[in-house]
Amino acid sequence: MAEESLFTALVTAENAWLATLVAAGIAPRAAAADLGTLTGDADIADIAAGAEADGNPVTGLVGLLRDRAGAATARWLHRGLTSQDVLDTALMLCLRDAVAALAGALDQQVHALIGLTERHRATPMLTRTLTQPALPGTAARKFANWLAGILDAIDTLKALPARPVSAGGAAGTLAATTELAGSAEAALALAAAWADKLGLAQAFPWHTTRAVITRTGDALVGCCDAWGHIANDIAAGVRAGELAEGSGGGSSTMPHKSNPVLTVLLRRTALTAPHLGATLHAASAASVDERADGGWHAEWATLRTLVRRTLVAASQATELLSGLRVDTARATTHQREAQGIYAEQQTMAGLTGRTPAAQYLGATDVLVDLVLQRARNHLKEAQ
Amino acid sequence: MAEESLFTALVTAENAWLATLVAAGIAPRAAAADLGTLTGDADIADIAAGAEADGNPVTGLVGLLRDRAGAATARWLHRGLTSQDVLDTALMLCLRDAVAALAGALDQQVHALIGLTERHRATPMLTRTLTQPALPGTAARKFANWLAGILDAIDTLKALPARPVSAGGAAGTLAATTELAGSAEAALALAAAWADKLGLAQAFPWHTTRAVITRTGDALVGCCDAWGHIANDIAAGVRAGELAEGSGGGSSTMPHKSNPVLTVLLRRTALTAPHLGATLHAASAASVDERADGGWHAEWATLRTLVRRTLVAASQATELLSGLRVDTARATTHQREAQGIYAEQQTMAGLTGRTPAAQYLGATDVLVDLVLQRARNHLKEAQ
Amino acid sequence: MAEESLFTALVTAENAWLATLVAAGIAPRAAAADLGTLTGDADIADIAAGAEADGNPVTGLVGLLRDRAGAATARWLHRGLTSQDVLDTALMLCLRDAVAALAGALDQQVHALIGLTERHRATPMLTRTLTQPALPGTAARKFANWLAGILDAIDTLKALPARPVSAGGAAGTLAATTELAGSAEAALALAAAWADKLGLAQAFPWHTTRAVITRTGDALVGCCDAWGHIANDIAAGVRAGELAEGSGGGSSTMPHKSNPVLTVLLRRTALTAPHLGATLHAASAASVDERADGGWHAEWATLRTLVRRTLVAASQATELLSGLRVDTARATTHQREAQGIYAEQQTMAGLTGRTPAAQYLGATDVLVDLVLQRARNHLKEAQ
Amino acid sequence: MAEESLFTALVTAENAWLATLVAAGIAPRAAAADLGTLTGDADIADIAAGAEADGNPVTGLVGLLRDRAGAATARWLHRGLTSQDVLDTALMLCLRDAVAALAGALDQQVHALIGLTERHRATPMLTRTLTQPALPGTAARKFANWLAGILDAIDTLKALPARPVSAGGAAGTLAATTELAGSAEAALALAAAWADKLGLAQAFPWHTTRAVITRTGDALVGCCDAWGHIANDIAAGVRAGELAEGSGGGSSTMPHKSNPVLTVLLRRTALTAPHLGATLHAASAASVDERADGGWHAEWATLRTLVRRTLVAASQATELLSGLRVDTARATTHQREAQGIYAEQQTMAGLTGRTPAAQYLGATDVLVDLVLQRARNHLKEAQ
Repeated sequence: MAEESLFTALVTAENAWLATLVAAGIAPRAAAADLGTLTGDADIADIAAGAEADGNPVTGLVGLLRDRAGAATARWLHRGLTSQDVLDTALMLCLRDAVAALAGALDQQVHALIGLTERHRATPMLTRTLTQPALPGTAARKFANWLAGILDAIDTLKALPARPVSAGGAAGTLAATTELAGSAEAALALAAAWADKLGLAQAFPWHTTRAVITRTGDALVGCCDAWGHIANDIAAGVRAGELAEGSGGGSSTMPHKSNPVLTVLLRRTALTAPHLGATLHAASAASVDERADGGWHAEWATLRTLVRRTLVAASQATELLSGLRVDTARATTHQREAQGIYAEQQTMAGLTGRTPAAQYLGATDVLVDLVLQRARNHLKEAQ
Repeated sequence: MAEESLFTALVTAENAWLATLVAAGIAPRAAAADLGTLTGDADIADIAAGAEADGNPVTGLVGLLRDRAGAATARWLHRGLTSQDVLDTALMLCLRDAVAALAGALDQQVHALIGLTERHRATPMLTRTLTQPALPGTAARKFANWLAGILDAIDTLKALPARPVSAGGAAGTLAATTELAGSAEAALALAAAWADKLGLAQAFPWHTTRAVITRTGDALVGCCDAWGHIANDIAAGVRAGELAEGSGGGSSTMPHKSNPVLTVLLRRTALTAPHLGATLHAASAASVDERADGGWHAEWATLRTLVRRTLVAASQATELLSGLRVDTARATTHQREAQGIYAEQQTMAGLTGRTPAAQYLGATDVLVDLVLQRARNHLKEAQ
Repeated sequence: MAEESLFTALVTAENAWLATLVAAGIAPRAAAADLGTLTGDADIADIAAGAEADGNPVTGLVGLLRDRAGAATARWLHRGLTSQDVLDTALMLCLRDAVAALAGALDQQVHALIGLTERHRATPMLTRTLTQPALPGTAARKFANWLAGILDAIDTLKALPARPVSAGGAAGTLAATTELAGSAEAALALAAAWADKLGLAQAFPWHTTRAVITRTGDALVGCCDAWGHIANDIAAGVRAGELAEGSGGGSSTMPHKSNPVLTVLLRRTALTAPHLGATLHAASAASVDERADGGWHAEWATLRTLVRRTLVAASQATELLSGLRVDTARATTHQREAQGIYAEQQTMAGLTGRTPAAQYLGATDVLVDLVLQRARNHLKEAQ
Repeated sequence: MAEESLFTALVTAENAWLATLVAAGIAPRAAAADLGTLTGDADIADIAAGAEADGNPVTGLVGLLRDRAGAATARWLHRGLTSQDVLDTALMLCLRDAVAALAGALDQQVHALIGLTERHRATPMLTRTLTQPALPGTAARKFANWLAGILDAIDTLKALPARPVSAGGAAGTLAATTELAGSAEAALALAAAWADKLGLAQAFPWHTTRAVITRTGDALVGCCDAWGHIANDIAAGVRAGELAEGSGGGSSTMPHKSNPVLTVLLRRTALTAPHLGATLHAASAASVDERADGGWHAEWATLRTLVRRTLVAASQATELLSGLRVDTARATTHQREAQGIYAEQQTMAGLTGRTPAAQYLGATDVLVDLVLQRARNHLKEAQ
């Protein structure tokens, strides 16, 4: 979702549309061209500057392509589309790649957490509620809980609707494309061919119905929430000396310190992501007319920031979970020395009349198995 | 999601748990009781006040029930559960009813929009983009676009995960329940029986993995976005004199005015909802330990406010769409007098060499049909 | 900022306006009446219900007052005002009381923190950065830091603009009042007299310029931030066993626990407040025309929620700070056992060539004195 | 607030500190150096990349400076400071410049609005409330209202506290600096000398008390709110044909269109700014220990985005207001043809028994004069 990727996606979208027009016999063969050869990273700054003058980057890009293309190509490229079509379609191309990368990272985290859970099946780790020691527990239970959160985030991603092209034209009526294609049916077929070429879904024009954006944003925020929860637990574990990052960050003045930098950075992302998701909703809710007067324009930068931060956090979470270290001795001591954590068991024994067992782990092992099973099912499906 | 409903749901959850304990033979038959008869709306204020002292309303409720119940009942009620289990389960009961009511309202809106779309199939209505006249259009296209937004909101609701009971116990390990039931398997079976009794789903303990809350919140915000979009369009249509509410609100000082009050109130809700959704994400991301130290506590009031506002807005949206009036004459005049709205058609004709048609509606009719078809499919499924 | 207070303030505003009209000789003496006797808490539910139909509660209130008042009073009350004038003015009355209560609570917290700081001048308390032990410190330094945050919050409150009446009339032009008073100057004098009577400031009509609302909201959020910071520190201190609440909350199932409930509830408030503040900004930014079409309507409930939560948190923060306990022995042990916290001092000694002192507290004492001095200056001014 | 400016500010901060150490005789004269010559824009990418590994950009910068500096300089630079000191101080340097630029732009807007108000003193322009025609008005009243909003935004900026250096050292105790300077008093004097050199204020260490950040953020959001309000009014005016941008943006497919691009882009900024301001509050409220574990890290990018967007919007608002055109004929016609806008006047005449005047502008002219006077007073002070 970097500046370069979005620019490339804009050109890809225009290029595929031109090819679609030519393939359909609407534009002449002479118009065929590889628009990707006409532009390069050197144009990005100009296009970005023009975006503020025109309200979006596409007007400038189309002008530049027309200047540089041969006459037939210049005459036909972009015909039928509006700026919003191209930008929205390019965003979907970027999102597709981003979500795929994200899904890959989440699967790595699933692997890492399965490993942690299995390795620490029997490691005692005190449970705490409202900051206070509660009942006996195991490290595996904590890791399985994180894993459940990651699997929930994955489920949310899986539930996202297909990412569509946008081919509504100036007012969402495909008017120009219908004129070019000769009929409404042919216009829709053209849009479908374009979608196929780009690997996106066909869709009812969505210039002012933005659920695909908000739902994607919400799913990304959901990932950041899951990592935030994990990072909070690790921060608490690091404070208690029970957990440590694989390798911490140094201090510019205190050589003894090993700061849990990945943990801190994940907490950072979790603090900011909800506000970015909310911005996308506010933008969506500001939709009006056949193309909005500011709502749409509020989406790009916010969506890009959210995607970038989510991907950075994804990679930090993978690194964090892959390297996480458990101080088994310390964890064991803390649990052994905790006061009152068997009191509830005594109360229950009073009710049942049974002698309390040596342990008080309840359904811990069965629950851990259930999550591991869910994780393995997901990985099997994901293959 | 009023105070009363949540209170009732808390008692319902405790009552069903007690019945489950008795049915399983864990609590004696003498413990059986209808807890609902022990409390009433008169207790709500006390419980609410206690919620601030204890950090949640359940501690106070359990105390009150134990005071009023017979000895065997008092001895057994709530055993195995923790406060968070009861409150989370009660919230799920309330959410279930709220989402059902919401789905009903959305279906009424689908009906209203099908009607509007069909009645105004041929009514001219100028399209506007970035506030300016763009191309010719029809009122049906605008209504179909709103309908697509409502159907997207419905799809988001449908994609929500099942609403689970919470039966994790003090630390999410079902430790007390396992002690009472005799084995982890029996404990999980008890939780499943409770879920059945309440009509909720069984679930892995979710004290600190809150995706079910955030996803529900996001879906509700998505509904408010869809209504916000519609309200923005109606506000613009009312400004232009092309649309009017069925009956407007009066002014305290200007008798000639008919204010589009429903429109205004829907815009209000759309402005606030994204922030409520974001609060739920921030709360979820603050999860820590086996039960959180503030994150969980930030959810209730926010979720309840979001649910209440969404339901109020749902009913306002239904009323608004059911009564919406189109000033066909004015809309026709505006489209006839708009300048330049056939310019794009001329450009296309220059490209194709074909004579432009009298109209320039593109795929409008086909698109309208597609949305109507999608709407009818949904209604058929929903029956 | 409860329902009752706002209702009372609405009546107070109308009542004072009527008295102003009579005092100015515009309304006849026969119109004089105490409107407060015409309504009571029993009317609140009706007025609230009507608020959804009319878009605000004032239309209903004026109708009710006219029904119940004598003919002359009914004829003259509310004349010159618009609904928004009355509601905005009533909100300012409520805000004035709320801010005064808040300032009082903050001063109590200043007192409590001065006490804590002085009592723990010499109590060792490890400093921690990025969760890790950093350098030696004192408990006084930590308390002084909290105190600095509270004093910053107080400064922000002090910088708020005066709370104005709203007397713009239907379109912010004082048109009706000018007609009644005979001249623009007389109309402004009438508004000024009203403001005097209510103890509010005179102001340029502010129907669509809402900085007074957003600035107040921001200042309240700033208070919640300060308490959030303190609560985070206390949560960390409670985890470490160095700090404890005066009296904790019980657990519904674990008798040994003493939950830091006030801490948890302050964290809760700090998580939600920023979103409420942002909602007020979004509402302000949605201002349009001479009275807005949704932006204004989004303010009331949000402002009221923010005010109520801030006041509840204020009282919780006062209670928390007044009762806070320090485990001096534990804090001393932790600092003594911390590794590497003198390493930086060694590095500095290497640079200066001086023998390091036994302690490494830097400017701690001087800084503590500076904050105490600032606090005392504030309290002296506040008297 | 671009990447380059922040980088320059980081080096400026380190450079001034080194000079301060040398000037105080703490570091030897041989350590004196101009650190600005050791780095350049080519280093930015490396430093930015390192920021993710270390959690902040300063650790990398200090390493790089030590590598490139002579031995004495390398030995002394940064001594006494911590990373957060340098980054916070650099942010304050950037903020100072940004706020100065912003204040300049706001003053230009004040000039533009004074001009518009004076030129359109007598131009009729219908007032509208809740989207509907309300009372007669003038364009000057509307512009004066915008001006009042801008002046409120300026007042909020003026009320900001002085921007401080951060010189707390590793744990906010000035421990290292005290060691180097020989006493706490000398350490504080050193910090004061540094502040003087940089043109910033001296301050109590503020690692975890972040009101200066949140208050600045809130003030910037307040500016965006004011422009959002203006842009909403212009969008409505453009829809009605009463207002037009000086020069609009083109459409990629509809040559007749002149889109109000500046208006749209200001609305965009107003939609996103509240969420950025809220993020800063959430970050502040997450402060903990002597340096935070994520809260602080969430500030930079958000603050930079907010500052950049505010400055871009400031320049767009200046351009928009400088070029705004009024269609006096259209505005006059709309007011003449509006129905019922004198009804309130009739009601008032019924009450007073006086014949209604030909106009019904109330205090419009006096109010306009009051705002103009306030604006001129501000400009006089600002000189």
